[in-house]
Amino acid sequence: MSKLIPARGYAAASATTPLSPFSFERRAVGEKDVQIDIVYSGICHSDMHQARNEWGGSVYPMVPGHEIVGRVVAVGDKVTKFKVGDLAGVGCMVDSCRTCASCREQLQQYCEPGATFTYNCEDPKYGGQTQGGYSDKIVVDEDFSLKIPENLDLKGAAPLLCAGITTYSPLRHWKVGKGQKVGIVGLGGLGHMGVKFAHALGAHVVMITTSPEKGADATKLGADEVLISKDADAMAAHANSFDFILNTIPVGHDMNPYVALLKRDATMCIVGAVEPWGAVHGGAMILKRRNIAGSVIGGIAETQEMLDFCGTHNIVSDVEVIAMKDVNTAYERMLKSDVKYRFVIDMATL
Amino acid sequence: MSKLIPARGYAAASATTPLSPFSFERRAVGEKDVQIDIVYSGICHSDMHQARNEWGGSVYPMVPGHEIVGRVVAVGDKVTKFKVGDLAGVGCMVDSCRTCASCREQLQQYCEPGATFTYNCEDPKYGGQTQGGYSDKIVVDEDFSLKIPENLDLKGAAPLLCAGITTYSPLRHWKVGKGQKVGIVGLGGLGHMGVKFAHALGAHVVMITTSPEKGADATKLGADEVLISKDADAMAAHANSFDFILNTIPVGHDMNPYVALLKRDATMCIVGAVEPWGAVHGGAMILKRRNIAGSVIGGIAETQEMLDFCGTHNIVSDVEVIAMKDVNTAYERMLKSDVKYRFVIDMATL
Repeated sequence: MSKLIPARGYAAASATTPLSPFSFERRAVGEKDVQIDIVYSGICHSDMHQARNEWGGSVYPMVPGHEIVGRVVAVGDKVTKFKVGDLAGVGCMVDSCRTCASCREQLQQYCEPGATFTYNCEDPKYGGQTQGGYSDKIVVDEDFSLKIPENLDLKGAAPLLCAGITTYSPLRHWKVGKGQKVGIVGLGGLGHMGVKFAHALGAHVVMITTSPEKGADATKLGADEVLISKDADAMAAHANSFDFILNTIPVGHDMNPYVALLKRDATMCIVGAVEPWGAVHGGAMILKRRNIAGSVIGGIAETQEMLDFCGTHNIVSDVEVIAMKDVNTAYERMLKSDVKYRFVIDMATL
Repeated sequence: MSKLIPARGYAAASATTPLSPFSFERRAVGEKDVQIDIVYSGICHSDMHQARNEWGGSVYPMVPGHEIVGRVVAVGDKVTKFKVGDLAGVGCMVDSCRTCASCREQLQQYCEPGATFTYNCEDPKYGGQTQGGYSDKIVVDEDFSLKIPENLDLKGAAPLLCAGITTYSPLRHWKVGKGQKVGIVGLGGLGHMGVKFAHALGAHVVMITTSPEKGADATKLGADEVLISKDADAMAAHANSFDFILNTIPVGHDMNPYVALLKRDATMCIVGAVEPWGAVHGGAMILKRRNIAGSVIGGIAETQEMLDFCGTHNIVSDVEVIAMKDVNTAYERMLKSDVKYRFVIDMATL
C-alpha cells in the first residue's frame, strides 16, 4: 500500500495564470484511508480567491476544490466506515489535531492549531501542500470522509460539502425551527441552500435580496416571503420581526438595515464576508440586545448529520454542470453572480 | 391625594446653558405611587449627553438624573411594596407599556412601544415630560420603584440603579460565573461595577485598560489580572482565552483587538458605545464563531435581584459626593475621566 498514486488535476500555477492541467502524486492509501474516484467537484468562491491569492498565502501549483463527491475505489486495512463502491464525500477539511477542545467537541472546523484544509494547506502529517477536488482522485482519512446518501442526485450533492454545511450549521447552532421567522440575506450558492434548509427545518423563511427578479426563484426554493432590501418601506414593515438572519453576502457591506430587522435578543450570523464588516450602529444593537456572529462550515459529525438530513428531505444544491476546460470561464461568471446556484465540474471531462 | 407636589431641582434650560435651580410640580401621589425624598442622585454620562442635546431630541427645561435613592415619605392607598420610611430607589425607567412581549418577560428596558424613561421623556400616562433625580423629590409607581437593602452605604447605592444594572444584567444574561475568564474593558463608572460583579459572581476577572496606572485600583476592586490593551505582546498572550468580555468604552472604537481575545463561541457585549462601532474584521468573527452583542440596563425584576445581590455581597459603587452647585464642574471632570468612579449629588445641598 506504499506506492504513491498518480493523479491528474486542474491547478493554478500562479495568482495570475488561469487553471490548467497538472499531474501529481497522491499519497498511498494508508490503513485508515479511503481512495475516492472523484465524480463531481463543486466550485466555491473561496477556490477563486485562493487560486488568485486574494487572501494571501497561496502556494502553487494549487489544485482547488473542497466540494467533492465520488466512489470509493480502495480502502485501508483498518477502515470500517466505507467499502469499495460506496459513495463518499470530502469537504473543506481532511484532518485536524484531534486533541484540542474544539476537536474533542467535534468542532474540527475550529481546531485550535488549525484544521488541515483540503487544499492550499500545509499538511502537518504527510508534508507538502494538500491538493483538492479539481482532480480525478483523492486519498483521505476515513474520519474526514462523509457518507453520501444514495438517493441524492450526485452532482447536486457536491456543494453540500461546503455551501451546504456552511448554512446548515448556523441554522442548527442558533436552533432555527418551527414558529420562527428566519431571514436569508443573499441568493447565491450559500443563500439558496440557506433557504432550502430553513424551510425544511420548519421556519417561516424570508428571502432578503436586492434583486426583485430573484423573488420567483426564492419562492420555488422554499421561501415564504421575499423582502427587497432596497425597498425602505418594506424593510420598515419587517423591522424588529426576525428571530434569526443568515447573512451570506460575500463581501463587507452596510449591516445596519439588516440589524434593524432583528427582534430583541435575535442574532444575525455572517457566513460570507471574511473581510471587514461595515460599522454597525451601537444604539440599534444595545437597545434590543441584538447579536452579530460569524460561523464557518461545520464539524465532521455535523456535516454527516446535514447529509443525512438532505437524504431524508431530498435536498441538494441547484447546480450547473460544466466541463473542466470551462472552469476559468466559470470563475468569471461567478464574479457576475451568473450561476444558479453553484458550478459543479463533471470530472469525466478532465 | 390630587394636589400637585411642588419640587425643586437642577435643570438644563437649553443645550448650551449650565444646569441651574428650577422649581416645578410633581404629580400628586396616585393610589399605586410612592413619593420619595431624594437623598442621593448619581450622575451618569447620559445625563450630560441629554442635558447638552448630544443625542438629539432633548426637551427643556430638563432635570436629569436616573440613579436615585431616598426615603419614602408618602404612599398611595394601593401600594403594597413600600411603607413610609422605607429606603427606595428609582433607575432609568418610571413606567412601560406593560403589555408587549418584552414587558411580559419582565424586560421593560426593551418595551416595544418604548419604556417611559425617568427624565427627558414624554410621559404617555400623565402628559408632559418626565423629570429626573437632580431634585428634592420624585413620585413614581411602586412597580418601578426598587427596594434598597438597608445595609448598603446609601451614597454608593445610587449608581447601582444605572451603572450597576447596566453591568450586572449582561453578566447574568451571558451566564458569567465560576470557572470563567471574564474581561472588563474600561475602568470608569460602568467598568468598576463590572469588575465588582464579575468577581462576586466567581469569575476570574481581567481588567482590560489602556492605562497602566489603573491597574492597582482594578486589583482592589476585585480584578485578578490587569491587561494593558496597548501592550501588543500581552494582548497576544491572552488571545482566544476569554469566555466573555464586557466592553464599557463609552465611544465608538476599534473592537478588533478585543475580538481577538474571545474564545470560540464567546461573546463581547457592548454597553457603552451607542454610536457607530468601528468596523470588525469578519474573518476573526467567522473563524471562531464569535459574537458581538449590545445590552441596555435591565428589567425591574432584575434590578431588584441586583440590589439584593449587592445587599448580600455588600457591593456599592465607589463614589465622589458633590454639592448640587458643582454639577456643571462634575460634567467637565467626567469628560476627562477625572472621577473615581461615579459622582453622586448630596441632595441636602440643593
